Amino acid sequence: MAKKVTFNISKKDNFSEWYSEILAKAEVTDLRYGVKGFVVIRPWGTRIIDKMYKIYESALRCTGHEPAIFPAVIPEGNFLKESSHVEGFAPDVFWLDKDCTSGDDRLALRPTSETAFYDLYGLWIRSYRDLPMKMYQRCNVFRNETKATRPLIRSREFHWIESHDAFATKKDAEAQVQDDIRMTDEIMHKIFGVPFLPMRRPEWDKFPGAEYTVGSDSILPDGKVIQQPSTHLISQHFVKAFDLKFATRASQVPSSRAKEKTKVPWLTCYGPCMSRMLASVISMHGDDSGLVLPYTLAPYQVVIIPFGNDKVGSRKSEVGRVVEDVQAQLLSEYIDVKVDDSDKRPGEKFYYWEMKGVPFRMEIGEKELENDEVSLFIRDIREKISVSIRDLPETIKNLGAEYDERLLARADEDFEGRVVDCSSKEEIKRGLEDGKICRFDFCSCEKEGAGCAEFVEKELSARVMGTLASASEVVDGRGQKVGKCVVCGKKAIAKVYAGKSY
Amino acid sequence: MAKKVTFNISKKDNFSEWYSEILAKAEVTDLRYGVKGFVVIRPWGTRIIDKMYKIYESALRCTGHEPAIFPAVIPEGNFLKESSHVEGFAPDVFWLDKDCTSGDDRLALRPTSETAFYDLYGLWIRSYRDLPMKMYQRCNVFRNETKATRPLIRSREFHWIESHDAFATKKDAEAQVQDDIRMTDEIMHKIFGVPFLPMRRPEWDKFPGAEYTVGSDSILPDGKVIQQPSTHLISQHFVKAFDLKFATRASQVPSSRAKEKTKVPWLTCYGPCMSRMLASVISMHGDDSGLVLPYTLAPYQVVIIPFGNDKVGSRKSEVGRVVEDVQAQLLSEYIDVKVDDSDKRPGEKFYYWEMKGVPFRMEIGEKELENDEVSLFIRDIREKISVSIRDLPETIKNLGAEYDERLLARADEDFEGRVVDCSSKEEIKRGLEDGKICRFDFCSCEKEGAGCAEFVEKELSARVMGTLASASEVVDGRGQKVGKCVVCGKKAIAKVYAGKSY
Repeated sequence: MAKKVTFNISKKDNFSEWYSEILAKAEVTDLRYGVKGFVVIRPWGTRIIDKMYKIYESALRCTGHEPAIFPAVIPEGNFLKESSHVEGFAPDVFWLDKDCTSGDDRLALRPTSETAFYDLYGLWIRSYRDLPMKMYQRCNVFRNETKATRPLIRSREFHWIESHDAFATKKDAEAQVQDDIRMTDEIMHKIFGVPFLPMRRPEWDKFPGAEYTVGSDSILPDGKVIQQPSTHLISQHFVKAFDLKFATRASQVPSSRAKEKTKVPWLTCYGPCMSRMLASVISMHGDDSGLVLPYTLAPYQVVIIPFGNDKVGSRKSEVGRVVEDVQAQLLSEYIDVKVDDSDKRPGEKFYYWEMKGVPFRMEIGEKELENDEVSLFIRDIREKISVSIRDLPETIKNLGAEYDERLLARADEDFEGRVVDCSSKEEIKRGLEDGKICRFDFCSCEKEGAGCAEFVEKELSARVMGTLASASEVVDGRGQKVGKCVVCGKKAIAKVYAGKSY
Repeated sequence: MAKKVTFNISKKDNFSEWYSEILAKAEVTDLRYGVKGFVVIRPWGTRIIDKMYKIYESALRCTGHEPAIFPAVIPEGNFLKESSHVEGFAPDVFWLDKDCTSGDDRLALRPTSETAFYDLYGLWIRSYRDLPMKMYQRCNVFRNETKATRPLIRSREFHWIESHDAFATKKDAEAQVQDDIRMTDEIMHKIFGVPFLPMRRPEWDKFPGAEYTVGSDSILPDGKVIQQPSTHLISQHFVKAFDLKFATRASQVPSSRAKEKTKVPWLTCYGPCMSRMLASVISMHGDDSGLVLPYTLAPYQVVIIPFGNDKVGSRKSEVGRVVEDVQAQLLSEYIDVKVDDSDKRPGEKFYYWEMKGVPFRMEIGEKELENDEVSLFIRDIREKISVSIRDLPETIKNLGAEYDERLLARADEDFEGRVVDCSSKEEIKRGLEDGKICRFDFCSCEKEGAGCAEFVEKELSARVMGTLASASEVVDGRGQKVGKCVVCGKKAIAKVYAGKSY
């Protein structure tokens, strides 16, 4: 007798348990690999990540980024070239055993690849004609996290895309930072249904070696902030360390003055992490019956359950013939469809595919066929409707678009209610306890663990997320209309956001 | 003044120099990363590899393989479970520094992932219902090669797919080995245009831990044999070491006898390596003007060179409008097209795109438009034809299919001439000197470096590739009609193949 699969944990009351359970039950990950912080991503999770990669790679190529493959190891010498970078990353680096890299520099497993790309950019960028140079790679990266790890959220290996761009002017580079934020909005927010705040990080929390960093902060159901793709304007220190320069247009004219001959490029980088976005997608949309996946990302968008005694493909069965035909129609329109004609009981199949988050369950039996209809169960709203058997691919595509719009609207509504304005320390404290992101007037974003920042971090155990980087410009918050710092009462210089994080 | 790009090295007379030069000139790889055996794969190479991955992943999914993502590190304990495996791979393993993996087992960078997959298969495979279990991952793997490395051919990091399958019976597993060989034939041979011989390896050259191995041997223009995807029937030692077992169908019936309760599965694995296949594709088809890429794999399948004074998109230019329209038409039919409207001289553009191996160069100017035609230069045969401007996507697709057929036919013809029958030691020696694969009657494939094998390996510096695994079965060569061993003159037991290799 096949076992019944159920999933019924309250996501609202116990998110942590819900999250762990759904990863296992829906076969997204397996934590039994036996090495801390390294998880196995099972086919159901891999297929979602694969769709995320496709969407991101396509968007990057459409915006002029070329794919590349860089080595997974980085020589120590590359790191040492930029001091704040090596200081920032050195504690988290996995090094290869010196004995097996004889003759070479000590080798690190890449925690990120700026120092690999820039090494070659120094050779590839010669003149203004080579700019902008926009490149990305899809790869695994490694961080030797010492804190507690959480599957897909904080792991020691993760799966991302990193793009590294070089421009002739700072203006172009800053425009790219805005393009990166826009890409996060267009893909992670609009397609994956994960809202976020683009946050210009405080000075102490920027990427090691950046002039400034804009992180994308989303929120988990337990009120914890989770950092999603960040984009960085890289400091000129990096450029000097790697000796990046280009001959300007003027310098190609013999009469140009010597001092105009070469300039240094401006660099940006951007790092959308698929495995971590998967954690947000699962957390944002799931419910007490299991996963709810956006139609666009679901490994199977439709599962067909045939009713009747005959197996699919059987010559005797009208239902079998129709199921095969419908499956072929959907596949030909690039809809991912699975026919579940296993010998499990219908109820068991229903539970299973609901838990896996398949958007549409299509039931086809003699009863339905009598009216030239099929029955469609819609996962997110848990409603069953009848639709005509004609033009099914078109119907599914339209319903799929509506499905994703609903998920996005629900996520947006939830997220809006998550941000509260606070005008006192007590209000911040209460807000954080209620799982909110708190917005308040603040005096300084310069020093970590000092003064008012220390109060937020130590007393409230929260994180100063930063100031809002608007959709049109990255601002440091200065010049916003603000009153007094809610912590110390002195003149505030910016509105900052703070939240709990893992 | 822009620099002129030329490429004119004789591939026939100096393959080694030709290969190194074309990798650099066509911007396939960059060897200046500074770590032995680790190369940067540039966008042109990455785009080809990306197309290879897409074709392979699609074929694997169509044959029931599910994608997964396993960790890049493997605990030493996993290796130790199967002694011949650890002995075979241990010398080539990169280990992580013990200091940064405190508390854990010593960690290896995966050289291959059998011992990662089987660890979890032990948990996932419970009953006959779970079989076959067919899974693959696309990933980077690492081998600490001590021999001289060659870009894409022998590197310390490479990019492949590894599939790991488990079956209820040996018959099913052996059928999978045949399916793997067929997949190599259908993709690498028929689509990429790289012919090969499926070789059952001698005992001493099989995969560490396999019952038998079938390697796919192709050849480089200098007569060196290059091993392409191999497939392995994994020995039962592995199965026992990882405690893999499943409840049989009978055991689920209460009345079944106890001894029928569980059985051990049969395992296979298969490893097509994209970066190495790229080496074969480049070597097989390229000519003295540079790369010649199969239409199916070319990053750009068509490059359009507009003629005239106006920039593309200019309102004034009829040519510009037509070019934009043609580009849109081709893109809408999923043809990868690039418009080169840079300010380089036409001759320079011609050289450049020929060297990069773009199959079709489309020239569009006022002269062509007068006759409603465009001019098409076909890279492999270096001929220029005129085609109607109507139905261009259809025309290109048809010409593209013919293009790949020509490349395949040429490669097959070359490969056939590469295999020679030898009936004496002198003939083998001469064959090897002529860059041939030699086929001859042989007395034993059991022991490395002993007797007649020693003669081939030591005296002739060649490799015993193995015996032919036919398209319908994997045979060890016994029972073939053979005469006397050409080395020792005693009774032969098989026809073996031998060739030079790197």
